[in-house]
Amino acid sequence: MSNNANTIYYTLTDEAPSLATCSLLPIVRVFTGSAGIDVKISDISLAGRVLSAFNDRLKPEQQVVDGLAFLGELTQDPDANIVKLPNISASEPQLQECITELQGQGYDIPDFPENPQTEEELDISARYAKTLGSAVNPVLREGNSDRRAPAAVKAFARKFPHSMGEWSKASRTHADYMRGGDFFSSEQSVTMDSATDVRIEFVAPDGTVTLKKELALEAGEVLDAMFMSGDQLEEFFEASMEDAKQTGVMWSLHVKATMMKVSHPIVFGHAVKVFYKDLFAKHGELLKKLGVNVNNGLGSVYDKIADLPRSQREEIEEDIQACYAARPELAMVDSVKGISNLHVPSDVIVDASMPAMIRSSGQMWGPDGKLKDTKAVMPESTYAKIYQEVINFCKTNGAFDPTTIGTVPNVGLMAKKAEEYGSHDKTFELNTAGTMRVVDSDGSVLMQHSVNAGDIWRACQTKDVAIRDWVKLAVSRSRNSATPAVFWLDPERAHDRELSKKVTAYLQEHDTEGLDIRLLGYVEAIRLSMERMVRGLDTISVTGNVLRDYLTDLFPIIELGTSAKMLSIVPMLNGGGMYETGAGGSAPKHVQQILEENHLRWDSLGEFLALAVSLEDMGMKQGNASIQLLASTLDKATGKLLENNKSPSRKTGELDNRGSHFFLGMYWAQELAAQTEDAALAAKFAPFAEKLANNETQVLGELAEIQGVPAKIEGYYHAERDMVKEVMRASPTLNALLAEMAS
Amino acid sequence: MSNNANTIYYTLTDEAPSLATCSLLPIVRVFTGSAGIDVKISDISLAGRVLSAFNDRLKPEQQVVDGLAFLGELTQDPDANIVKLPNISASEPQLQECITELQGQGYDIPDFPENPQTEEELDISARYAKTLGSAVNPVLREGNSDRRAPAAVKAFARKFPHSMGEWSKASRTHADYMRGGDFFSSEQSVTMDSATDVRIEFVAPDGTVTLKKELALEAGEVLDAMFMSGDQLEEFFEASMEDAKQTGVMWSLHVKATMMKVSHPIVFGHAVKVFYKDLFAKHGELLKKLGVNVNNGLGSVYDKIADLPRSQREEIEEDIQACYAARPELAMVDSVKGISNLHVPSDVIVDASMPAMIRSSGQMWGPDGKLKDTKAVMPESTYAKIYQEVINFCKTNGAFDPTTIGTVPNVGLMAKKAEEYGSHDKTFELNTAGTMRVVDSDGSVLMQHSVNAGDIWRACQTKDVAIRDWVKLAVSRSRNSATPAVFWLDPERAHDRELSKKVTAYLQEHDTEGLDIRLLGYVEAIRLSMERMVRGLDTISVTGNVLRDYLTDLFPIIELGTSAKMLSIVPMLNGGGMYETGAGGSAPKHVQQILEENHLRWDSLGEFLALAVSLEDMGMKQGNASIQLLASTLDKATGKLLENNKSPSRKTGELDNRGSHFFLGMYWAQELAAQTEDAALAAKFAPFAEKLANNETQVLGELAEIQGVPAKIEGYYHAERDMVKEVMRASPTLNALLAEMAS
Repeated sequence: MSNNANTIYYTLTDEAPSLATCSLLPIVRVFTGSAGIDVKISDISLAGRVLSAFNDRLKPEQQVVDGLAFLGELTQDPDANIVKLPNISASEPQLQECITELQGQGYDIPDFPENPQTEEELDISARYAKTLGSAVNPVLREGNSDRRAPAAVKAFARKFPHSMGEWSKASRTHADYMRGGDFFSSEQSVTMDSATDVRIEFVAPDGTVTLKKELALEAGEVLDAMFMSGDQLEEFFEASMEDAKQTGVMWSLHVKATMMKVSHPIVFGHAVKVFYKDLFAKHGELLKKLGVNVNNGLGSVYDKIADLPRSQREEIEEDIQACYAARPELAMVDSVKGISNLHVPSDVIVDASMPAMIRSSGQMWGPDGKLKDTKAVMPESTYAKIYQEVINFCKTNGAFDPTTIGTVPNVGLMAKKAEEYGSHDKTFELNTAGTMRVVDSDGSVLMQHSVNAGDIWRACQTKDVAIRDWVKLAVSRSRNSATPAVFWLDPERAHDRELSKKVTAYLQEHDTEGLDIRLLGYVEAIRLSMERMVRGLDTISVTGNVLRDYLTDLFPIIELGTSAKMLSIVPMLNGGGMYETGAGGSAPKHVQQILEENHLRWDSLGEFLALAVSLEDMGMKQGNASIQLLASTLDKATGKLLENNKSPSRKTGELDNRGSHFFLGMYWAQELAAQTEDAALAAKFAPFAEKLANNETQVLGELAEIQGVPAKIEGYYHAERDMVKEVMRASPTLNALLAEMAS
Repeated sequence: MSNNANTIYYTLTDEAPSLATCSLLPIVRVFTGSAGIDVKISDISLAGRVLSAFNDRLKPEQQVVDGLAFLGELTQDPDANIVKLPNISASEPQLQECITELQGQGYDIPDFPENPQTEEELDISARYAKTLGSAVNPVLREGNSDRRAPAAVKAFARKFPHSMGEWSKASRTHADYMRGGDFFSSEQSVTMDSATDVRIEFVAPDGTVTLKKELALEAGEVLDAMFMSGDQLEEFFEASMEDAKQTGVMWSLHVKATMMKVSHPIVFGHAVKVFYKDLFAKHGELLKKLGVNVNNGLGSVYDKIADLPRSQREEIEEDIQACYAARPELAMVDSVKGISNLHVPSDVIVDASMPAMIRSSGQMWGPDGKLKDTKAVMPESTYAKIYQEVINFCKTNGAFDPTTIGTVPNVGLMAKKAEEYGSHDKTFELNTAGTMRVVDSDGSVLMQHSVNAGDIWRACQTKDVAIRDWVKLAVSRSRNSATPAVFWLDPERAHDRELSKKVTAYLQEHDTEGLDIRLLGYVEAIRLSMERMVRGLDTISVTGNVLRDYLTDLFPIIELGTSAKMLSIVPMLNGGGMYETGAGGSAPKHVQQILEENHLRWDSLGEFLALAVSLEDMGMKQGNASIQLLASTLDKATGKLLENNKSPSRKTGELDNRGSHFFLGMYWAQELAAQTEDAALAAKFAPFAEKLANNETQVLGELAEIQGVPAKIEGYYHAERDMVKEVMRASPTLNALLAEMAS
């Protein structure tokens, strides 16, 4: 597939990013073309996925390539270079809207079978199922993770810092977590000598063995087993609530029920049961009969009692209120609406909520709408400890100062569903006491735990090939950025001890001469990173999958005020690279604005950054200085754009996405003209830069005058491409200049 | 002086320890004699020092040896082995009492000249001056410091733990310190290539140079210069008081005005000025006229206004009260009497007050007699940071548990008045702005600072020979105790960077194979020590002089509940050793009790421990297994004594110092009888052990029946030795058994 070596695959997705692409790519191609790079579109939009699933029913001219399948295969190509924009993770209602739209456009695709019965319906249902939810990431994320703050973004934050709430040395805020009975305390871990099949079994007290799961493990694969005690979890919750009540701090729960979709809703449910224990003591039977599921939060209680007779409902509502009098104040998600932390399990997500609290002086919103000190409860101690270290650090040293602090990029172990994030199908809530064990194919017990009813047991896998690649990535990031790298490996965790052995061994495979690479426990690692950060020094965090997720919110939010501006690179196991843009979703509200007022506020910053690193990697791989120059000048252009505040405005009539692209193009051309490393490129782009500058007023005028009236693009999920083109390439002057350069 | 190789010099001091010595030594000599060791008395008591100063006026039979001068010389002997008991650091009134007593006993010594005029009076005054105050330590402390919790004491604390206040995770307590403008921020440091003379000079803005001090420096000596800004100190105090007021925590000041006798009273004075700023704004002139010195605390105000007319005095007293309304609550020394933290500079001594606060849940006593969270203010940041680290640690992990924690012994750089503790004659409070500088003999400026009026400037010296010995001591302690050693050297301190170079170089002079020796910054070092401590692991702290002092209170108070039970060893630079006992002073109250009721509550634990290590060192030096066996069996005996609670009771009629000695002797004999390493010693002490055990009731009876009536010893400072002997060796049975063994 060497024809991919000079190709960037740029994903066509949905909504705002897909519109922006129509404006941006013609500009980009002027530059990439100069180095012989082809930028190809690959359609992974929801509509594209739906259509390709039913190509067999479409007319030849209607048929489309299955872009996702194509890219999935491409991930195995060492030359793969994919720029991945945010796409819709379709819910069922969204899918149905999309189907209706496509049918209206004359595509013969079937209705969505709500309740499939026939063989045909089942086939249709199966095809549609593949387009639902997070269909894209598992296919494309064929590698570990390299996330960092781009230099231009960091420089911008230093110059125009976001707000950071001051910290009081007398703050009462703290993290609270279990001191035993959690996954951390019970973790066991084994590394497979050779490929083997194992069984996860439950052994009842009478000896009956129930098979819970079979796993095929690879040689060198690390398998962990651990459990959390339901009883100790509830005792911990009770004690922490009592303590918060007595010391006068708010109580807040921070879990990740969305990602840890099996274990964390259960943990959350225990918190609801304990906090509202008087309610459940009094009305437990009724609520059970009504089908209340505590794992869905107090919201579930309100839902289920909605249809009760008024007096009965009101009694329950009063008893809910009575609970608040006996309990500490709860941190609120929406204090106006009375939505607390325990209302819905997905409202408070630890990796975002903790950094937000840290930015807000360690405080959260109380029921009275005031910011207050908080007991931030994260039952599982493994990762919670790092937040206490951050809190202690802020109390000691005050808030972080975005204008001076260094950066903490991350190299994350993510490939092949590593660690806890791949544990969902191996997580079990136990109904009875007994023994959970992992048994090898030869019958020997690899790990086992005595468990009680209510305990949550889980196993996690980590593949050797992923670890090996992760070590390699860490070394190359440390080398390429001349930055110390710290492997966050806790010597008190069984899993991390296994990983440490591998890391130590695999580091020998690389030239680490002159590099500062260390293995430290989590608390030591975060402390070192913070101590260096406040001194303006950078430190790469090389972490497992969960910490990858947590830290790439924590540090970006501290450093940049948001994690959306991070570079997110997935260097594929086979050598290719994927460059993800933005964490802001595909922005449906942006589409409403352009449809109504022809103003697109989408900020393509993520695309600029991803493109630059995509070019940089390609240039390095090929040893091609021109391509590397394109990358570095694009980065400078992006920096200039930020510095001159040429990002899109939210306000119709002002600079929007299209105008912002004009500036990017102009700055990029100017940077190329100004550089002296490649005279040919300079000569080529100098006149272009001059023409763009000379026509700035003209182009911006053309892009401004079209705004304020509705834009017609005939479709939401599958707009008419020519109409989109007309809307998104609205400056004839710019189009002419681009055409001239491309010819 | 090789005749000293088998001699232990045991100091005869004052008050309780000197009485106890009379009972203990005859027992000890039975054991030491068996290994050919001579235990000699060396009189360094106040009376002894006075008499020896006037030997020329005494009759031949009255003349005494100058024990202190003798021991001073002995410190230079590689074979020196000194057991040093607490002695009186005489105040003038104490000296006068002593003189009167001696004159009454027929010694022709002169009266103390209150206002010496004649040549003779001046001579007398000069002789007496040498007996006043801390006359002993500077003569004897000819080495660095090795302090540790004896194994028996640590075991006792594990079994019978002292109370430790619980810590709330929501505690508001914290350490507060300057973030600039303090000694830490301005420290400069140079190492001398060769011996040289330097001048400390003040250069006025008009160029006038004032010589402040001349110093003769040795080759390799480290000289530091630093200053604290008076203005920034006051701004810091004001801000910290405002913050405490707003956040509702108490304000407390922790300095060491006793030891840092020049700089810290000034720092303390600024705090008084700022806290009572309204008082000084209104009455400043009057108070100045009255001679109030803020460096002596609010007490000075009360003293000086005592003689004012009543109405004027009451107005000032009311204005003092008004200050309390405008300021945060002050931590109290005595809330009943209304004595606050700012009353007298010597009441709150940081090295004792901070550990006490840490033991009391991070709280101090408020004006209302309640324990409360506190802002512990230690203006100088250098060492204050370690307390914040401890506080954070306790909030995160809860109170330390004496039953499980490890120990943190100390190897301290103390020899030759090292570092800040020798800075008093080189500390200057400046009256005008200008430049303070250190100038070499060739006129080159080694260090300089721009200073303002009110700034405190100081220089500190550290001699190379002391550092070299300190490194050697650290290595040998790490080797001998098989314990990791951490040099607390902060890379952000100029002085410590100089020391780090030396330490790194001098470590090469030793065999460190297999040892874990690290250099870490203070905060890292204390964190590591605590993390290890809570896991039951020991870590030697190898520190400078101030941290030596601070840590040998902090850790002992956490581990043992007191620092009085620590072993305190001074391995002399020339190879000898001094073994100091107890930190409890010479206990005048104990003497009152024996004079009135013939009960001595003095606990000779410190002497047992010091003797054991004195023997251990002697045994190691000589490669003499029998002496080492004496040491280890004495340690075991001491452990047994603690475990069986055979320490003296405070209550007359119960076991006292003498009975406790009996048990020590019996246990020691039993341990020797029970061991199998040295058959001869076992054979010798087995019958003795048996006899002591058989006579236990008899001996204890004899020692009990004498109690309850006054004891006659004819003298306080210079008691009649035979009468002391009669009192302190009151069991004929025991005396006979000892005589039998000695014969």
